[in-house]
Amino acid sequence: MSKIKIVDLYSFSVKALTKIGVSEENAEITAKTLVSTDMFGVVTHGTKNLGQYIEKIEAGGLDAKAEPTVMREGPAFAIINGNKALGMVTASKAMRIAIEKAKKVGIAYVGVKNSCHFGAAGYYANLAAKEGLLGISMSNTDPVIAVPNGAKKAIGTNPFSFAAPTGDGKSVFLDIALSNVAALKVIMAQEKGMAIPDTWLVDEDGKPTTDASLFPQNASLQPMAAHKGYGLCVLVEILSAVMTGAGMLSEVASWNLDMSSTNNAGHAFIAIDIAQIMDTDEFNKRISQVINELKNAPKEKGKDTIFLPGEMEWNKYDKAEESGELELTDAMANSLLKLADKTGIEINIY
Amino acid sequence: MSKIKIVDLYSFSVKALTKIGVSEENAEITAKTLVSTDMFGVVTHGTKNLGQYIEKIEAGGLDAKAEPTVMREGPAFAIINGNKALGMVTASKAMRIAIEKAKKVGIAYVGVKNSCHFGAAGYYANLAAKEGLLGISMSNTDPVIAVPNGAKKAIGTNPFSFAAPTGDGKSVFLDIALSNVAALKVIMAQEKGMAIPDTWLVDEDGKPTTDASLFPQNASLQPMAAHKGYGLCVLVEILSAVMTGAGMLSEVASWNLDMSSTNNAGHAFIAIDIAQIMDTDEFNKRISQVINELKNAPKEKGKDTIFLPGEMEWNKYDKAEESGELELTDAMANSLLKLADKTGIEINIY
Repeated sequence: MSKIKIVDLYSFSVKALTKIGVSEENAEITAKTLVSTDMFGVVTHGTKNLGQYIEKIEAGGLDAKAEPTVMREGPAFAIINGNKALGMVTASKAMRIAIEKAKKVGIAYVGVKNSCHFGAAGYYANLAAKEGLLGISMSNTDPVIAVPNGAKKAIGTNPFSFAAPTGDGKSVFLDIALSNVAALKVIMAQEKGMAIPDTWLVDEDGKPTTDASLFPQNASLQPMAAHKGYGLCVLVEILSAVMTGAGMLSEVASWNLDMSSTNNAGHAFIAIDIAQIMDTDEFNKRISQVINELKNAPKEKGKDTIFLPGEMEWNKYDKAEESGELELTDAMANSLLKLADKTGIEINIY
Repeated sequence: MSKIKIVDLYSFSVKALTKIGVSEENAEITAKTLVSTDMFGVVTHGTKNLGQYIEKIEAGGLDAKAEPTVMREGPAFAIINGNKALGMVTASKAMRIAIEKAKKVGIAYVGVKNSCHFGAAGYYANLAAKEGLLGISMSNTDPVIAVPNGAKKAIGTNPFSFAAPTGDGKSVFLDIALSNVAALKVIMAQEKGMAIPDTWLVDEDGKPTTDASLFPQNASLQPMAAHKGYGLCVLVEILSAVMTGAGMLSEVASWNLDMSSTNNAGHAFIAIDIAQIMDTDEFNKRISQVINELKNAPKEKGKDTIFLPGEMEWNKYDKAEESGELELTDAMANSLLKLADKTGIEINIY
């Protein structure tokens, strides 16, 4: 495993984005999103994808110079057109608007259309938590899940995230895809030639299969918790796409398999200003009580720690912040080196 | 299986509640909630429980004469004290406030403390959908789920529901507990002496077990989708209880095993006024597109129908409405006959 200094990864990302025509401000927003995501250990959704976002700009599927615009708004809501800007830019600005509106009236919903893959949903939920608000963040994606009684990809993994402040600068947060497992886990089993549990995929007949090699052409992901996950996928589709004017279901193209196409995914952000609803000290005391009770609950035999949602991610974040450096998987290092080579921007991986 | 006319079930419920001191208005709200829930086929959460709610009033765990009061509010939120009123009364009134506020500003959150079992979460989400709003409804419950790496009951099944209007007077709706299966399914397997899949329960060591007889004393439910369901349980706990002042985790007593105790569950309701966000005709057209695409997706071999979330429930509702009568399970019939006997109120079950 190789390493990189976090400041170097950040400045490399900003330079690569500005070189392709992204404004300094938007390059910084994007770099911050992707590098934070790496620091949380969610390396599948961080700077590893930077090269692909840049390829998508080159192919015309994203517009480097675009700025999101507000199409419609009220005291507690807004609908934003991403105008094919980078998903991280539009999502960050949309959550900022949700936070500002929530600070005035208590809660706000901001929907986004004409956007693209926004990285990790948890980043935006945490933008709200960082300011003491409860944040919820979600997106639809291109279809990859077969719904109950179905045989083919019909709905996206539709990631869902929430983050709640805890009074110590951190958060309790969850960031999940609504499939039973991530597509990446299937691909990894495939590469190792391993059989998989029959709860991950269905084959072309819609029947559970243990053959990872069928994916993605001839198999679809199963929703988490069967009809329950399917139902939640539909909720995310409605809030992110039906209500925003974004692409719905099959109208959303794969963001990285179809580089020249507009992805047209939609997102939804909800922020709740806890301080208006409950005195901050009382909220902090109460959430600490929940945290302590969960952490101190009796443990499974052989296990010594119950983790809060997001706790493992915060542990990784703290470690990265303290050391000032990140360990890079081979996939990350290769992706960054390839981008450095292509752009002629120096990168210091050691 | 016996039957009852829906109008008779409704008027019996109203009479039983007014006899114990509930106001006419609140008895009607409660009867409407429970009878609608039976019509949707969710008979575990309908009039079968009426006798237990009345027992809880008699035991002092609920206050027949209480009215919920608004403790704190803003343009887009309110916190309500249930004052130990029937959960159905407080929840219905809370969702009404959420709907009214959402109609002014776009979205609203209403949290509830000092409440009790509110029946089926889906009923309240559908109150919003009936008026063209998207409704979300949830509640915490007494702990019954063991969290990942835990061995004992640490958090509730924390039911979650949403409903979205479809323009035809119905809704797409989901109403789920966040456990892998409902406690009732475990009890049914127990009664039949059947082994259960190892994904339903953990034993006292926190290890998966196939022995249904251990529940509830020596086994706990597993969350749906492992850490994902656990995380969603925490979100519901925060919105329903941490932010409202309700009982949290172990502070919530079983509503029907501990009749004299105040249950002190909390709820949360969110309403989004779609009409402000998107022209109604356009929304209806768009949600119809999603419905048609999902319904017409390729089917699993041997299956001929993909159901939308809530579709099976609406089919049952329509059938009940058309026939004007409900089929009663033995458990429902026995519970209603027992209550009729106790109160001296006539009931016509045939």
